[in-house]
Amino acid sequence: MSVQIGSIAQLLPTFISENSYSRIAVVVDKNTKRHCYPKIKYLLPKHLLIAVNEGEEFKNISSCVEIWSKLTEGEFDRHSLVINLGGGVIGDMGGFAASTYKRGIDFIQIPTTLLSQVDASVGGKLGIDFEGFKNHIGVFTLPKTVLIDSTFLKSLPFRELRSGFAEVIKHCLIRDAAMWNKIRKMELAEMPMDELIAHSVEVKKAVVEEDPKEKGLRKILNFGHTIGHAVETFFLDKKRLLHGEAIAIGMICESYIAYTKGMISESELGEIEEFLYSVYGTVNIQEADFASIIALTAQDKKNKGSKIYAALLKGIGDCAYDVQLTKVDIMKALKYYSGIL
Amino acid sequence: MSVQIGSIAQLLPTFISENSYSRIAVVVDKNTKRHCYPKIKYLLPKHLLIAVNEGEEFKNISSCVEIWSKLTEGEFDRHSLVINLGGGVIGDMGGFAASTYKRGIDFIQIPTTLLSQVDASVGGKLGIDFEGFKNHIGVFTLPKTVLIDSTFLKSLPFRELRSGFAEVIKHCLIRDAAMWNKIRKMELAEMPMDELIAHSVEVKKAVVEEDPKEKGLRKILNFGHTIGHAVETFFLDKKRLLHGEAIAIGMICESYIAYTKGMISESELGEIEEFLYSVYGTVNIQEADFASIIALTAQDKKNKGSKIYAALLKGIGDCAYDVQLTKVDIMKALKYYSGIL
Repeated sequence: MSVQIGSIAQLLPTFISENSYSRIAVVVDKNTKRHCYPKIKYLLPKHLLIAVNEGEEFKNISSCVEIWSKLTEGEFDRHSLVINLGGGVIGDMGGFAASTYKRGIDFIQIPTTLLSQVDASVGGKLGIDFEGFKNHIGVFTLPKTVLIDSTFLKSLPFRELRSGFAEVIKHCLIRDAAMWNKIRKMELAEMPMDELIAHSVEVKKAVVEEDPKEKGLRKILNFGHTIGHAVETFFLDKKRLLHGEAIAIGMICESYIAYTKGMISESELGEIEEFLYSVYGTVNIQEADFASIIALTAQDKKNKGSKIYAALLKGIGDCAYDVQLTKVDIMKALKYYSGIL
Repeated sequence: MSVQIGSIAQLLPTFISENSYSRIAVVVDKNTKRHCYPKIKYLLPKHLLIAVNEGEEFKNISSCVEIWSKLTEGEFDRHSLVINLGGGVIGDMGGFAASTYKRGIDFIQIPTTLLSQVDASVGGKLGIDFEGFKNHIGVFTLPKTVLIDSTFLKSLPFRELRSGFAEVIKHCLIRDAAMWNKIRKMELAEMPMDELIAHSVEVKKAVVEEDPKEKGLRKILNFGHTIGHAVETFFLDKKRLLHGEAIAIGMICESYIAYTKGMISESELGEIEEFLYSVYGTVNIQEADFASIIALTAQDKKNKGSKIYAALLKGIGDCAYDVQLTKVDIMKALKYYSGIL
C-alpha cells in the first residue's frame, strides 16, 4: 500500500502523469468542496465533480447510489479514476462506490481531516452505515495511493482535530510506549503534527500489511473501538459525539477492563486516564442508557456468535486481541468511566 | 476455486460438517423456494430462509438491501454463511450481498439452472443491475465452494435449459474444437448433460484461474457478449429474451465480424450459424432499433474510453480478445443476422 506525505501540489500531478485514466471524478462534500477542492482543482485535467451531502448521517446507500449514478451518466469505464477528497465518510463511501462500480475501478484517497489521515485512509476498509450500524456494508480494497498533506488540517475545527488525535493516541498505546511517553506530557496545540501523522501511518501500515484481512493482529487497531463504537452509535441520533471523542471513552473503559484482568497496572491505567480526561473531558452518559450501549456492542463485526471480543492493552505499547468480554465487564467499565464505581 | 459436481445430498452435509458457522442463511426466489429448497432443507442445521422476488428485474439494490436487512435482523456475524440456491440472479446478488455484508462473509453457490451451473457460479463475478445496465455494480469475490447437482435441472423449463446451453456452446467454440464437432451434430435433447457441465466448468475454471481479474485471457469468455449483452439490455423492458438467447445472437453477430476480419473462414461461420439458428431460431430485431443496440454496446464494461472491444474467434476452438470494433462493424453484423445484408 502506497502512502505519500507531502505537498498535494507536487504529489497529485505526479500521480496523474504516471497513470493514464480515461476519466477522473472528484468526490467531495460541502465542506471539502469549499475548503479543499480549490487546492486541487487546478492540478487536475478535465474531471467530474461529485458533491454528496455532508456528514455521517449521509454515509448510506442513497449517497452511494448518487455516486454510482453520476459515474454512469458520465460514462465512466473501467479505466477511470475516483479521487476521494475529504474525511473518513468521503473516503470510506467514495472508496466503496468506486470499488463496486463495474466490479471495481481505481481510486485514490486524499484525506483532509486528521482522523482520516492517520486512520481511515490506511488499510483498505471501505463502506457505509446501514440501519444504524457503522460500516455495516463494505469491502476491503486498497486505494491506488493515499496522498496526505497536513496543510488541509488548517481549515479544520478544533474538535475535529482533537477527534482525529484519539487515533494517534491509540497507535502510541498499542505499539509505541516511547512515543506515548512523549505525547502524554504535551499540550494538543504544541504537538508535532507532521511527525505524529507519519508515525501513525507507519504503525497502521505495518499492522495492516502483516494482516490485511483482520484475521489476527490487525484486530489490535480496534482497541477502544468495541465500547467506543457502541457509544458512538448510541449517540448517533442524540447529541453529536465525534468518532474520536467516543473512542477516547472506549479507550478509558477498555483500559479499565484490562486493569481488572491484570493486563495493565494501576499506574498505567492512571496515566492513560489522566491524559485522556485532560484532552477530551468527560461525556455524561446516563446510567439508564448503559444497557442500550452494552446491547450495541453485540453487533460489533469482531464478535463471533453471541460472544463479545475486544483488543485490550497488555502493558503500554502492546496489545492483545480476541479477549472475551462479558456484559458485566462492560457495565462495570461504563460505571467506572462515569465515576459511579 | 473449488467446484464440486455430484449429489447435493452428499456434497452439502460434507461441506457443513467440515466448517463451523455461527449462523446460516439460504437465499432463494419463489421458484427455487418451491422446487429446490425442499431438496436441501433437511440437509441443513437451523438456518434462516431469505426469499427475494424472482427475476432479473429484481436483481437490484432494493433486493440487496432486503438481504442485508434480514442478515442484520438475524444478527449474522462475520463467521456466518450464506448459501445461494438458484440461478444466476440469486448467485450474483446473494454473493454480492454476502461479500459486502460486514465487509464480506462466507458464501457458497448451489446453482440450479444450467446457465448458472456452467457459467455464473464459476469465476467470482458478483453483482446487481443498475439503471438498466447489467451487473453494473459488483465485486470479484470467490465463493467458498460451488456445489453442482444436475438433478436440479429437471424442474427447469425447456427455454431456460436452452438458454444455459449457449454458454456450453461458447466454451466449445473458444477452447475446444473437438467438443464443438461433437455437439454440433446432436439434438439438444440427446446431449450428455453431466459431461457437458463438467467440460464447461473445466474450461471456465482454467481460464479464470489464469486471469482472475480479467486483465487479459479471461476476456475470451466475453465472446458473444459484447453484442449479446446489448441485445439483452435492449429487450429488457420489451419482450423477455433469456440471457443465452441474446448471447446466441451475439455469437452469430460477432462470428460474422470475425469472418469479415479474416479471423474465421466462410465455412466456419457457416457451421456456427447453422447450429445456432437450429437451436435458437431467429429473433426479429427491427432495423430502426439497431442504433439503440449499438449505443448500448458503448456501456460495456470491457471498453476503454469511447472505443468498443470484443473477443472474437480466430478459428474454431480459439479466441482473440481486445479486438476493436467500430459501430459500422456492429451495424453490418446486426443486418447480417437479420438477413438484410
